Amino acid sequence: MKNCIIASTSTIYGSGPLEYLQEALLELFENIDEILFIPYARPGGISHDEYTIGINNIFKKIGKRVMGIHMFENPIEALQKAKGIYTGGGNTFLLVDQLYRNGILEPLQHKILSGTPYLGTSAGSNICGLTMQTTNDMPIVYPPGFKTLGIFPFNINAHYLDPDPNSTHKGETRETRIKEFHKLNSQPVVGLREGSWLRIKGEEITLEGNLDSRVFEQNKTPYEISPKSSLSKLS
Amino acid sequence: MKNCIIASTSTIYGSGPLEYLQEALLELFENIDEILFIPYARPGGISHDEYTIGINNIFKKIGKRVMGIHMFENPIEALQKAKGIYTGGGNTFLLVDQLYRNGILEPLQHKILSGTPYLGTSAGSNICGLTMQTTNDMPIVYPPGFKTLGIFPFNINAHYLDPDPNSTHKGETRETRIKEFHKLNSQPVVGLREGSWLRIKGEEITLEGNLDSRVFEQNKTPYEISPKSSLSKLS
Repeated sequence: MKNCIIASTSTIYGSGPLEYLQEALLELFENIDEILFIPYARPGGISHDEYTIGINNIFKKIGKRVMGIHMFENPIEALQKAKGIYTGGGNTFLLVDQLYRNGILEPLQHKILSGTPYLGTSAGSNICGLTMQTTNDMPIVYPPGFKTLGIFPFNINAHYLDPDPNSTHKGETRETRIKEFHKLNSQPVVGLREGSWLRIKGEEITLEGNLDSRVFEQNKTPYEISPKSSLSKLS
Repeated sequence: MKNCIIASTSTIYGSGPLEYLQEALLELFENIDEILFIPYARPGGISHDEYTIGINNIFKKIGKRVMGIHMFENPIEALQKAKGIYTGGGNTFLLVDQLYRNGILEPLQHKILSGTPYLGTSAGSNICGLTMQTTNDMPIVYPPGFKTLGIFPFNINAHYLDPDPNSTHKGETRETRIKEFHKLNSQPVVGLREGSWLRIKGEEITLEGNLDSRVFEQNKTPYEISPKSSLSKLS
């Protein structure tokens, strides 16, 4: 009985961190007063402590306490005992590297599959797909692998950006990059725009937020899906 | 006696592929009528043949023939015999993966260090730094390593983009990504804007083109350098 929020971003323009998700988080973490935070992605390179303190400051406003997984001597044990889990954004390569090196990938997968409420934003959402290979991040570290949790049978592209028709830049658009991905990989990719999230309850996956998402399947023309669409059959 | 052009992009807005570099290429490849092309980066996922044909069509206008390295039974031998080399852009992960798997990384390094004229654009330039870890590309394949040719003692960021002050997007800016890189890695990063290239002659490295470049050193405020600046001392 999976129970997850997989969000494109922690923060949308013009509002505070996680503010736009507040109602959804109160439902996800109902009756849970302590959340285990995985700060490994270190946005902008901040420390695990700094990151955790910032996240605790957000969650305390809704009556929840946050502990960083790095604060425990045995991170696997901390994970096994967690009542709710949040993996924050930052650099996906760094996050995945740390999940592998701390032996946390499988225990985390097990916890999520067994129903522990899970929130992912950005990098913390990327790791719930089959692989991290549709991240936008820079490969600042070489992880032992690109395989991730496979909570759903596709990949996501967080912070999905439409091509800018007025751009004079010749670097690849996001769509071109995903097209290159599909020359070598077969799983679908869901381009989640900032403000969108997937709500997973058991085997049901629903698109939430006010925006459409763009779905890329191998050898198909990309297409848009509307809020409240089901992604349960996508694979 | 290194002899290289390391360009941010093959194509700038409003002009044909390699057009803005034509004069520089005539000088680089003077007296060379056949160029060995490395098409492994496959921009947009096109085939090695398609890519090579397109590049040959460009070079034939300046009287040069292009052969793709994939057209030879023994790519290492083809490389060793090459009089001039061009590695084109596309996906840097795919390019590096293929260089490793075909055993070409060391022979290519040796050729460049021994003075064979070399042109790199985009991914083909990224591989000339110490590592490929400041690429903008998507990790569509897992290469055996991120270490690259080390033709100069720093990394480059091709297609360097300044932060857009009007953007409402919350994904990381290029500068934030490079800052994250410097939390874990010490080598400088040269942000080469589209239209800029490095001209390397022996131990001399000069910034060419009309634009400034942005230099990122660990624990320093990033700074701009002007065209014709020397980067020979940067490490």
